[in-house]
Amino acid sequence: MASEIRAPLGDAADAAGGRTATRAGLLDAASALMREGDTMEISLSEIAQKADVNSALVKYYFGSKRGLFLALLERDAHAAIERLGHLLEMDISPTQKLRLHLTGLVNAYALYPYNTRLICTLMRDSSEEEAKQISDRYVRPIADAQARLLAEGVQAGEFKPCDPTMFYFSVVGACEEIFVSRQILKYCFGVSTFSASQRKLFTEQVTAMLLSGIAV
Amino acid sequence: MASEIRAPLGDAADAAGGRTATRAGLLDAASALMREGDTMEISLSEIAQKADVNSALVKYYFGSKRGLFLALLERDAHAAIERLGHLLEMDISPTQKLRLHLTGLVNAYALYPYNTRLICTLMRDSSEEEAKQISDRYVRPIADAQARLLAEGVQAGEFKPCDPTMFYFSVVGACEEIFVSRQILKYCFGVSTFSASQRKLFTEQVTAMLLSGIAV
Repeated sequence: MASEIRAPLGDAADAAGGRTATRAGLLDAASALMREGDTMEISLSEIAQKADVNSALVKYYFGSKRGLFLALLERDAHAAIERLGHLLEMDISPTQKLRLHLTGLVNAYALYPYNTRLICTLMRDSSEEEAKQISDRYVRPIADAQARLLAEGVQAGEFKPCDPTMFYFSVVGACEEIFVSRQILKYCFGVSTFSASQRKLFTEQVTAMLLSGIAV
Repeated sequence: MASEIRAPLGDAADAAGGRTATRAGLLDAASALMREGDTMEISLSEIAQKADVNSALVKYYFGSKRGLFLALLERDAHAAIERLGHLLEMDISPTQKLRLHLTGLVNAYALYPYNTRLICTLMRDSSEEEAKQISDRYVRPIADAQARLLAEGVQAGEFKPCDPTMFYFSVVGACEEIFVSRQILKYCFGVSTFSASQRKLFTEQVTAMLLSGIAV
């Protein structure tokens, strides 16, 4: 049969490259649909149409929409969590580390505003054990890094003592909301697209407010 | 026909009371479903079942699910926006006013965690003009009150100058996130129900952080 004929190496590499590109294209499409539509309610056929491929390929590459969403979380969160690990090891003050972490949070939510809602939606539709795994992989590393950073800052006399759980939510919320509530930004404040210079100003203001808020 | 017989006044009053109770029960049911399920995706039949009435009554009282959602926004936001107006007129310092406003925000999101998502979802599914009306009624009063409060605080030498748009989102996000991301609170931080004493501690911490953050 034709399918049993081994392709020359060049063709095989091209095919593998094509597969990687299709998979990445589907993740990009899902990400763009959730960002543009401010919603988690996207269908497999919408994703496939946006990626310009047959919708059967979503099942082929990810098994299900849930599989695709988990792969998207992995794609979005992995590099950010790794950077946060490196940041903690840097030879700078706790205040400087927190400033970099907050800047990283703003940049992450600007790119992936759906991140928290996606995590919560996947957890809600999971068994207890699966939800715990999602938390351990995509939330706990951030919560643990913040708790360590807060303890370092208190130890160094730079930060006021503060409950890490409450800190997590108030800081994430402060950095995330402007990217999640785009309709309010548009209709109440007249900002349809948040420019790079507006993002820079927002980063400076929210970072300054939160750092002053926790400083001794 | 029996339906044309005028009921005695007592019966009419009872009937009117029953109608008001049914309408309120449907709003309570929708509110509880969105809060408990962390979702906007609730059906008319789920709402009717939760309220223990026939689902045709949703259409009778509200015309559509959108009509019910708008009535829910009105129910949830009206009193809060009125209180905010009174707060602005009080004879206390800008710092004290901001503390009360932030406490009010935390309490509002504890009761109606879906508020921002509901506003954004309704705006997304509206014409430009309808979206503007929703903004003018449920968002602008809060944004305007904050802008006035910030200006008073700067004038009184209590607050640092700060962009009101960016202030709105960072403050709303900081107060709201813990009630919106219940799955993360549960699976990462082990808190299934946020108790009254935890809410009090959260209010104190987030208020202290934001007030220090903006103080001169």
